[in-house]
Parts: sequence; C-alpha cells; structure tokens
Amino acid sequence: MKLTEQQIENALKELKGWEFGDDAIHTSFEFNNFKEAFSVMTRIAFEAEAQQHHPEWTNVYNELSITLSTHDAGGVTEKDIEMAKTIEDIIDAD
Amino acid sequence: MKLTEQQIENALKELKGWEFGDDAIHTSFEFNNFKEAFSVMTRIAFEAEAQQHHPEWTNVYNELSITLSTHDAGGVTEKDIEMAKTIEDIIDAD
Repeated sequence: MKLTEQQIENALKELKGWEFGDDAIHTSFEFNNFKEAFSVMTRIAFEAEAQQHHPEWTNVYNELSITLSTHDAGGVTEKDIEMAKTIEDIIDAD
Repeated sequence: MKLTEQQIENALKELKGWEFGDDAIHTSFEFNNFKEAFSVMTRIAFEAEAQQHHPEWTNVYNELSITLSTHDAGGVTEKDIEMAKTIEDIIDAD
C-alpha cells in the first residue's frame, strides 16, 4: 500500500541521505572508482532480486544514483523503505 | 581525438541500434528480466574496466540504456566506438 508523505518522511529520518520527490525516494553515492561502485551495485542487485524489488539506477564511473518506487502502487511503499535499508546496510558494510 | 559527426555516423553503420546525439552515442536494450539485464551489465563492467572506459548507464528491471562519450575529448572518440563494439559482442553472445 502506498505510504503517505508523512509516513515516508518519518521512515527516511531513520536512513541517511534519502530524499522524497516525484512519488519516489532518491539517493546518490560517490565511490573511489568504478570497480568499487560496481561491486556495491552487484551486492545490491542480489538483494533486489531476492526481494523481487528492483531499483532504477544510473551509474557513471564512481557515481551511483538510485531511485526507488513501487510501480504497481504508484508511489512509495514499505518495499521501498526496506530496499533503502538494505542498500544502506550494504554501503555501511563496505 | 574527437571524431567528426560523419566519422561517427560511418562507424555506427557497422553497429546495431546506436544513435548519435548530444556529443555522445546511445543505445538501449530490453532483456527478459532483471537477472539477465544485470548479468549483461556485469560482463560489460569487466570490459569497461579493462578498457578503462566506462559507460553512463541506467537500468530499471529488464531495461538498460547506455550512453558513451569521452569526457576528456568533449565528444565521441575511437574509445567509444570500441566500447560500443564490445557491448554489441557481449549482447550477441548472450
């Protein structure tokens, strides 16, 4: 079920560096180089596949931008918050 | 060295589905699912790292869009054409 803006903002307070906009949540990261960026992408890819919830993401060299939303719900759901937490855990472990 | 528009158009004739625009070349692919898209991305990533020439690319689920340009040259160079050929070989082998 689509979360309200208030619910989303509350959830994002427990995460670092995510913003809400255009019915989706967004973040971006900078790594030391492409290899590090793509290594993190690979870890995220496995988790996305396991959760059957996939990001829209753009990479160029050491930069990675990620957008999460739930297409079927037309906005942000618990699935996105969970995926955002997973991504944060992966980045923190890096 | 930056290629002329004519040189780029000639080179693209030998490739499938690439277009020139905004001082870069672009293509996009659709796969059966995320796993297949990301598998191809992984193969491309290794080649990009080997060639030390990295794409700007966006993935969402089974879709992959790729833009190639040579930042230092401010346009398209032989490096981009070579990378485009590499990507085509990877896709064709898939």
